[in-house]
Amino acid sequence: MKLTDLPTPCLVLDREKLLRNIKTMADALARHGVPLRPHMKTAKSIDVARLVLSGQPESITVSTLAEAEYFSAHGITDILYAVGITPRKLDDIATMNAGTAKVMVITDDIDTAGIISAHPRPPRCLIEIDTGEARGGVGPEDGTLLEIAAKLGPNLAGVMTHAGHSYAGRTPAEMTAIAETERAGAVRAAARLRQAGHDCAIVSIGSSPTAIHAASLEGVTEVRAGVYMFGDLFQAEIGTHGLDDIAVTVLTSVIGRRPGRLLVDAGGMALSKDRSTEAAPKDYGFGLMLDLDGTPRHGDAIVRRAYQEHGLIDLDPAHPVDLPIGGLVRIAPNHTCMTAAAHDRYYVIDGGDEVVAMWPRVNGW
Amino acid sequence: MKLTDLPTPCLVLDREKLLRNIKTMADALARHGVPLRPHMKTAKSIDVARLVLSGQPESITVSTLAEAEYFSAHGITDILYAVGITPRKLDDIATMNAGTAKVMVITDDIDTAGIISAHPRPPRCLIEIDTGEARGGVGPEDGTLLEIAAKLGPNLAGVMTHAGHSYAGRTPAEMTAIAETERAGAVRAAARLRQAGHDCAIVSIGSSPTAIHAASLEGVTEVRAGVYMFGDLFQAEIGTHGLDDIAVTVLTSVIGRRPGRLLVDAGGMALSKDRSTEAAPKDYGFGLMLDLDGTPRHGDAIVRRAYQEHGLIDLDPAHPVDLPIGGLVRIAPNHTCMTAAAHDRYYVIDGGDEVVAMWPRVNGW
Repeated sequence: MKLTDLPTPCLVLDREKLLRNIKTMADALARHGVPLRPHMKTAKSIDVARLVLSGQPESITVSTLAEAEYFSAHGITDILYAVGITPRKLDDIATMNAGTAKVMVITDDIDTAGIISAHPRPPRCLIEIDTGEARGGVGPEDGTLLEIAAKLGPNLAGVMTHAGHSYAGRTPAEMTAIAETERAGAVRAAARLRQAGHDCAIVSIGSSPTAIHAASLEGVTEVRAGVYMFGDLFQAEIGTHGLDDIAVTVLTSVIGRRPGRLLVDAGGMALSKDRSTEAAPKDYGFGLMLDLDGTPRHGDAIVRRAYQEHGLIDLDPAHPVDLPIGGLVRIAPNHTCMTAAAHDRYYVIDGGDEVVAMWPRVNGW
Repeated sequence: MKLTDLPTPCLVLDREKLLRNIKTMADALARHGVPLRPHMKTAKSIDVARLVLSGQPESITVSTLAEAEYFSAHGITDILYAVGITPRKLDDIATMNAGTAKVMVITDDIDTAGIISAHPRPPRCLIEIDTGEARGGVGPEDGTLLEIAAKLGPNLAGVMTHAGHSYAGRTPAEMTAIAETERAGAVRAAARLRQAGHDCAIVSIGSSPTAIHAASLEGVTEVRAGVYMFGDLFQAEIGTHGLDDIAVTVLTSVIGRRPGRLLVDAGGMALSKDRSTEAAPKDYGFGLMLDLDGTPRHGDAIVRRAYQEHGLIDLDPAHPVDLPIGGLVRIAPNHTCMTAAAHDRYYVIDGGDEVVAMWPRVNGW
């Protein structure tokens, strides 16, 4: 089967680029001797997980219970569910952990720590540390840290943090600085816990930009990152990878033609309404049009409007395009996590136009 | 089962509000004596379609081939696929139409009209008319209109238009004016076709705002509308319905607490990244927090940031909220078509907290 045989819109995954991105991250972390606990929230695919875990410990990070169930059913049992746990979800995790799964959870809440310890089948738990993102977590110096640890007792497995504010960085130097804050904060929290007599086996940090740009990972026991596997326009803008490293694109058909623009059948549903590049140096609207072979050959051919099933591409006057209705192009996404989520599968290529595999995704919750 | 028994995040559909919205639209169109061809792109559910079609012809509009297949498999055969057709998709439609389905297509392209007529099993086709949205379609006075009709020959079934620019209207008077442009353009195109000796049985118009606000539908044979069934914050802002008529909300759990804000487990995945209210009189961020019972009781408690699985709600200082981790709230969506698309089912309530049904959705393509 060729790309030209696929229904549109659909998701195309270039395995060559995926493997290159996996190697880049593995090499970056190998310099530090720190293993990866890949975040599968972007790929949501056991086939991708198998490639990422090659030569790594069989441990992953997930963002939903659906992912935890799916990956543990596929034999990956060491799982960190990296979204603040609720009492209700503790029951679901206890059910999973009654089998072969070993799902760990996170919290930054004293009451929840108590509820975990009171649970008949408590999971191991990391305390979430805020190292600057100001989303979740307690500060490394916060008194609450020791109170949560005391409540968790033997269920305490360590600390974790996510420097999501690295996405606001725009230069490698900024990323390196944020990476150091992330590392230092997590290590400091772990030191305080140990000083108070707690075990703190795991010191888990990560975001794709900080993982790539970290100068030191001293004291860190594992790194979490996910979007680097596929990349996207936003990550290319902030220097996590190059524009040519984007492994996931949306294949779409031309459904309308007017002077200077194309209408395609990839709209807000197929691309997502994510506008992350709005705040980046270059605003790519809802995506950048590539040739069918994945090359950015049309200059600034940008998806300027995304209706439900229509994408409106403003062509670059310097790069006229003459395609018939039904002509195929590919769209590089702004934010691959969001774009991939609308699709239930990847059509896999190895750089060329031959579809070599179809890999399912686990969406929803 | 109660709302408090549901996994989060999930989609809650209030059937009482749905039925009220259905009746409002039915009453609006009954004044004109024009039937509805409901657009199922928002609901994507046979259970919802059955309620909407009660007392109406068994004809619907869809936005994907997956919807066409799903609804025809459930016995609704008169289907308009209202996204510009491609040669490749003609084959898929021919396969469907070889069974009981009678799927019609649309085009605004002369070459495609020729390809339709040359197809061994051509579907009936409407010509798409541009009445001001400037997305797809030929102008009512455009010479191309007659050329397309000539190419379609006996496959010509009529004309259709969508005044999507009604979403830019902000007052009932503006909507009424756009509705009249929509009507007049479609009727004019039909008149030109008939004058040239073509049959033009169908004159199909519609968007939720223009369907509600049209002063006249003279010459129109059917109206398409979809989002009105559920409503959303954006439609409430532009006056298609009231804030209390939003039938679909996202049930979500509190996963983090800080002074003045809540973190919930409905992020960009569960809410979508749609920011349509950004351009509306009131910017609701990524959604408005409601009480568990669906009441907007917390003032301007607005989802200001949507991470992948985290929603960050800025609470209204005048309406303090004290909820534990695991506490439940509901989020009214900006744009219900996009929000619903992330979910594979509706949990149905009749105004109260009892879950009376679970209705599946047909997502993807």
